[in-house]
Amino acid sequence: MFATIIHGPRDIRLEEVDDLVLASGTGEGGEPASGRDAIVRVVAACVCGSDLWPYRGVTDTDDPHPIGHEFVGVVEQIGSAVSGVAVGDFVIAPFYDCDMTCVNCVNGVSPSCLDGNWWGRPDREGFPTGGAQAEYVRVPHADGSLVVVPASRADDALVPHLLALSDVMGTGHHAAVSAGVGPGATVAVVGDGAVGLCAVIAAKRLGATRIVMMSRHPDRQALATRFGATDIVEQRGDEGVAAVKALFDGIGPDAVLECVGTAESMLQAIQSARPGGTVGYVGVPSGGAELPIRTLFGTNVGVNGGVAPVRNYVEELLPDVLAGTIEPGLVFDLELPLTEVAEAYRAMDERRATKVLLRP
Amino acid sequence: MFATIIHGPRDIRLEEVDDLVLASGTGEGGEPASGRDAIVRVVAACVCGSDLWPYRGVTDTDDPHPIGHEFVGVVEQIGSAVSGVAVGDFVIAPFYDCDMTCVNCVNGVSPSCLDGNWWGRPDREGFPTGGAQAEYVRVPHADGSLVVVPASRADDALVPHLLALSDVMGTGHHAAVSAGVGPGATVAVVGDGAVGLCAVIAAKRLGATRIVMMSRHPDRQALATRFGATDIVEQRGDEGVAAVKALFDGIGPDAVLECVGTAESMLQAIQSARPGGTVGYVGVPSGGAELPIRTLFGTNVGVNGGVAPVRNYVEELLPDVLAGTIEPGLVFDLELPLTEVAEAYRAMDERRATKVLLRP
Repeated sequence: MFATIIHGPRDIRLEEVDDLVLASGTGEGGEPASGRDAIVRVVAACVCGSDLWPYRGVTDTDDPHPIGHEFVGVVEQIGSAVSGVAVGDFVIAPFYDCDMTCVNCVNGVSPSCLDGNWWGRPDREGFPTGGAQAEYVRVPHADGSLVVVPASRADDALVPHLLALSDVMGTGHHAAVSAGVGPGATVAVVGDGAVGLCAVIAAKRLGATRIVMMSRHPDRQALATRFGATDIVEQRGDEGVAAVKALFDGIGPDAVLECVGTAESMLQAIQSARPGGTVGYVGVPSGGAELPIRTLFGTNVGVNGGVAPVRNYVEELLPDVLAGTIEPGLVFDLELPLTEVAEAYRAMDERRATKVLLRP
Repeated sequence: MFATIIHGPRDIRLEEVDDLVLASGTGEGGEPASGRDAIVRVVAACVCGSDLWPYRGVTDTDDPHPIGHEFVGVVEQIGSAVSGVAVGDFVIAPFYDCDMTCVNCVNGVSPSCLDGNWWGRPDREGFPTGGAQAEYVRVPHADGSLVVVPASRADDALVPHLLALSDVMGTGHHAAVSAGVGPGATVAVVGDGAVGLCAVIAAKRLGATRIVMMSRHPDRQALATRFGATDIVEQRGDEGVAAVKALFDGIGPDAVLECVGTAESMLQAIQSARPGGTVGYVGVPSGGAELPIRTLFGTNVGVNGGVAPVRNYVEELLPDVLAGTIEPGLVFDLELPLTEVAEAYRAMDERRATKVLLRP
């Protein structure tokens, strides 16, 4: 099979690697493994903003390893203990593996699954999972991680929207949920990448009546407006904060959705919220995004969020995707065959694309 | 009139000062002031943990000034525009002045009142308010700040419980509300001072089924247990975190109420919460209480809280005080006449008292 391997900064290669096989019957110490895994043939994957960190050398790549964590596909093989999915099912996977039965999964925090795994790394029994930018992935907890899409609906046109449920749509939704967005809420979104754009969809869907998108890119402004943004603010930093507050009588919006992860964007989000408001943040913290505790204390602005439990959200969001009432797949503005994965990274690195969809 | 003046570290004096007078009719530029103020004769006041900061020299005292911010009393005079309180009314004041009509007050964040003031400092028109450790206080927004207690209930025995609504009970309640404590919640409380003890009352009152108090003082442990704590943890730091988590199958409680404000206590609170749990914090941040953003992100632990909007909570909590179902005044373990205010500070500074009630 072919899989994308990152070797180091700006060194992305599609390589022929060993086929992934079910771990069933080959468990540690000669014991049979759980039989809970499945092999999924990837129908579509994509490149995440966080994939650019090792690509740009912001984080180290000690050894070459499979990369990619967002995918939808068709089940090819299942372990003996799998009952929730069948061979031939079209499935959505979250950007992590989880069992959906442990206390953390039941509490709605499936990225903290007590038996969870990350794509591209060996699972807890030492068996490879494979990265998502590949022909196949092995899913350790098939019944937990995978959600089946009705066969009649798994058509090519819907694939980008389904794929968005693997990460960006659920992550934008998490920002909105974490910020307590509900009917009548006023919202500002910091970050006009794929997640920020999906956060606009989420805020609109949850009933926000005013949604300010902070963006200086005309194409992203247009998409944000299509998704439900009512106002655009082009300024950043202190000027951006002032411009957002000015839209709300100088007080600020109820909720600010932080979808970047830098210290600057977090500070901007915290300073933009009204007293007693909430920042819902999903941007992976980079560069020491300190939280100004005295400002938070003095204004009663709360900070909630983290690694989005997208698996917990699929059941809620999938019906809206199937009904066409939300179209998160519009964030993909470039589609390439998996063979051009290196170009996909370049296009995102050089900001020629917001998010690239890959088809093996 | 006599009022407590802080002159510098460990220099607290009860001094005769000019009587406070209504500002009505003496407004800036010759214009009549708003007429919204009242003069309140203090029946009981107290010393706050935060008063110890300037007392200990942790914060500077540039000029001698009135101190104290918690009081209940009887209305002696009212301005021409006051309609909600009458001369002779027994009233509870929050630890700040607020109008309860601006957008922030209406949003439930009265410490961020757009026209608010802090006791001991001149109001926004330049008129003195006076500190609470005194015979009288001038309240700039009487209709906003003051809540009337039914005359038949303003007896001496109830005074400590009513006084607690001025700060510590509402602040403990804010920690619980900010952490989302509701029926069936599991809770840990960091800090066994007056606020932490009131946080136990609040958690119990809101329906928490398990409440862990972190305390190593037998008398405070006993009071916490009386208030509803189900478990006591004496360890601190990493050992404390491990001990709390061990009580919840290694996962941690839903909510942690941070009632101290140091970097150590905040870290302990964040690390104790279960994935997806929430820290409700009301401890005034001291010494650069940094928030470990990567830990928060990885665990989805939220951080909510700040300066408690105790005025917004009085209507909810007062009926329970009047009914005797909560007894927050039990946190006062020493009562002194106002003439012994310097001894009150010493007793708290030397930890001979949890919280001292003062009667002019």
